[in-house]
Amino acid sequence: MDIVHRVGIKAPVSAVYEALSTITGLAGWWTTTTTGRPEVGGTISFRFFLETGAEIGGFDMEVLEQVRNEKVRWRVKGGPAEWVGTDIEFLLSRQDEHTVVMFAHRQWREEVEFTAHCSTKWATFLLSLRDLLETGQGRPAPHDLRIGNWH
Amino acid sequence: MDIVHRVGIKAPVSAVYEALSTITGLAGWWTTTTTGRPEVGGTISFRFFLETGAEIGGFDMEVLEQVRNEKVRWRVKGGPAEWVGTDIEFLLSRQDEHTVVMFAHRQWREEVEFTAHCSTKWATFLLSLRDLLETGQGRPAPHDLRIGNWH
Repeated sequence: MDIVHRVGIKAPVSAVYEALSTITGLAGWWTTTTTGRPEVGGTISFRFFLETGAEIGGFDMEVLEQVRNEKVRWRVKGGPAEWVGTDIEFLLSRQDEHTVVMFAHRQWREEVEFTAHCSTKWATFLLSLRDLLETGQGRPAPHDLRIGNWH
Repeated sequence: MDIVHRVGIKAPVSAVYEALSTITGLAGWWTTTTTGRPEVGGTISFRFFLETGAEIGGFDMEVLEQVRNEKVRWRVKGGPAEWVGTDIEFLLSRQDEHTVVMFAHRQWREEVEFTAHCSTKWATFLLSLRDLLETGQGRPAPHDLRIGNWH
């Protein structure tokens, strides 16, 4: 079971790549609490908090690939059981005046309710990535768009 | 290949079901140009326009199932080749103070770039459904959120 998304961003491919391959960039659209080494073989840790300050979980990703202005690929090493062992990829290309991000979160072992939640949530974070690049302001957690009773 | 999403909506299940099973409801969050017979065996036609007035396509859906306050299921009979023969379902349940919509667009024959685009676009329309129910105002086409060079 794979989750896939596509967004077109009016920004240079180098800026989109920067937002996917640096701590500052990632913290600007996914979660403000991002630490680690964003380089092949390194681990990046993402932690999520509510606006109340309560921690609600996180993910540790090993960087499998980073090809400048083309792709970023991670493997989930720590986090919810459903995520561990899955792969996340961002492929970049230019189309018209857009940088297109082809996103995939691959190898979910089964389709569960959490898969569907994560699919919708990924869409909102990819729109946060777009907002960061087009307006200078993303919506990383804990300021992320809520999509129901599972945050 | 299936697209799945999940949103929680602070509204009664009957109101969410109404938005999924009536022409007025569907026109309030997916596309204002919605016509047809939303009953089992009937066909619903959805047409999409840009704000400039240009038509960009549409879908004809046969209603396979409508179970009050529980589920709606359609089969795509007309539209883009990738969509014809696929099924779309909305399953409703109550959790906490939310009506949860489990959405699936099933049986894509292959994963193509258009699949990823449609996945992200479905997320934005499900958030439009939520906005319609929680605020009284959705974002149906042609007022829908753009997600790049493919609208």
